[in-house]
Amino acid sequence: MRQKAFNYTYLTRLHDIDAAGVMFFASYFRLAHDAYEGFMAEIGFSLPELIEQGRLLPLVHSSADFLQPVRHGDSLHIHVRIERIGDTSFTVDYLFVTDQGMQAARMQTRHVLINPADRRPSALPEALRQALQPYSL
Amino acid sequence: MRQKAFNYTYLTRLHDIDAAGVMFFASYFRLAHDAYEGFMAEIGFSLPELIEQGRLLPLVHSSADFLQPVRHGDSLHIHVRIERIGDTSFTVDYLFVTDQGMQAARMQTRHVLINPADRRPSALPEALRQALQPYSL
Amino acid sequence: MRQKAFNYTYLTRLHDIDAAGVMFFASYFRLAHDAYEGFMAEIGFSLPELIEQGRLLPLVHSSADFLQPVRHGDSLHIHVRIERIGDTSFTVDYLFVTDQGMQAARMQTRHVLINPADRRPSALPEALRQALQPYSL
Amino acid sequence: MRQKAFNYTYLTRLHDIDAAGVMFFASYFRLAHDAYEGFMAEIGFSLPELIEQGRLLPLVHSSADFLQPVRHGDSLHIHVRIERIGDTSFTVDYLFVTDQGMQAARMQTRHVLINPADRRPSALPEALRQALQPYSL
Repeated sequence: MRQKAFNYTYLTRLHDIDAAGVMFFASYFRLAHDAYEGFMAEIGFSLPELIEQGRLLPLVHSSADFLQPVRHGDSLHIHVRIERIGDTSFTVDYLFVTDQGMQAARMQTRHVLINPADRRPSALPEALRQALQPYSL
Repeated sequence: MRQKAFNYTYLTRLHDIDAAGVMFFASYFRLAHDAYEGFMAEIGFSLPELIEQGRLLPLVHSSADFLQPVRHGDSLHIHVRIERIGDTSFTVDYLFVTDQGMQAARMQTRHVLINPADRRPSALPEALRQALQPYSL
Repeated sequence: MRQKAFNYTYLTRLHDIDAAGVMFFASYFRLAHDAYEGFMAEIGFSLPELIEQGRLLPLVHSSADFLQPVRHGDSLHIHVRIERIGDTSFTVDYLFVTDQGMQAARMQTRHVLINPADRRPSALPEALRQALQPYSL
Repeated sequence: MRQKAFNYTYLTRLHDIDAAGVMFFASYFRLAHDAYEGFMAEIGFSLPELIEQGRLLPLVHSSADFLQPVRHGDSLHIHVRIERIGDTSFTVDYLFVTDQGMQAARMQTRHVLINPADRRPSALPEALRQALQPYSL
């Protein structure tokens, strides 16, 4: 089986928790993006370099299911995989699992490649498609 | 027509903007929740009081479309309405519009009422259903 | 008496509170900066415009005393004044007061004007000095 | 020489950077606290456990010098040491150094032990004093 996942681990901190005593929902989105940055660097498309080159991949859609509350001190293992590779965009899937193996959340983000000249969607380069492929669900 | 919207205005700040020069996607989720807190207080269900009473409404699902980039100093008008009132949950809809009338983002959050005794979904009280109703899409 | 204060009010939100049940200390710094942005716009030096013009005022020092815990739903009134106007820098003072008149925190931030050409400190323009003056402690 | 430092490394992310293109000052405070949490766990005083036991160490003072701008993709090495151990409080020192050895920032936080019964400062237990000691500057 050729499917791979990029794994990113995070230990929840004091400030991730909100007044209801659980991790604030926007913190999951921040963490998913941190995992996405790690994943992109791993496959050779580091975000700081892409931004410097004007090759932008704005996030156009995101959705998440929050399955179980996460508390201060919980470790989260975020498994990053690719749900879909389209012509001008790709969708990343994130599964948040605790140390105990509990699925805490599942999330998707969709990124579109923008041509800096006319700011319109642009075909994903073959090198990016091939780098994403091994992680396809 | 009886449909109302709760309106929440926010001026984007230095820290909302990320290294790509636009508002970071997780900041939209934080803002939507700020608008949701304002809405809930407006209809008589202030979150600090609900939490103190152990009446929790955890957010179980969220999705968002990011339609146009938002920049430092842009004003965002968030129109809060109710997309659906279910037996044990309700879904809130957020439309982000700039001063120029541009739709910047659209988002939904779904909240489930949890019975503090057994931590299971619980029927929405009639008072909450009636308070949400005038804002239904 | 000619001393003025710029006043900025903030209602603490779910995500400002941390796992210890009080406002996270870094949130005070974020709020102070939001108040500073409001103050600078009020006196005619809007940050988005300054940044676009390459006139940067980096924050080089900050200190804070946290006097009383702040909880979810507390209103904070931030009184912004100027502690010192130097040759190339100025220091802003922030007093955080609750609705009940309790002093919750006191903070300072120091900002240096940087010449974009050589990235060295540069004399504050007379217009900025005069705009800051009425708020001097 | 018996002085030790606890080292915490962080790779700056998209959202740490603000509209001026550098790391937002409040992000340094958040990072310092993440390093502090790691340090306290290392010396046997994990924050989640302390909070659960009602043994609170509120942060009563903080100050920081921001020496050089930090950009997206920069690695920060935070060296955590103890500046002072008092009767009821201790002060932590944080030195932020980049991969290139540049000192980016220096920060201090002061923490007071609070007796949960009367919410007044309380003598630091001997076990905590001994755990902090090897890291004293």
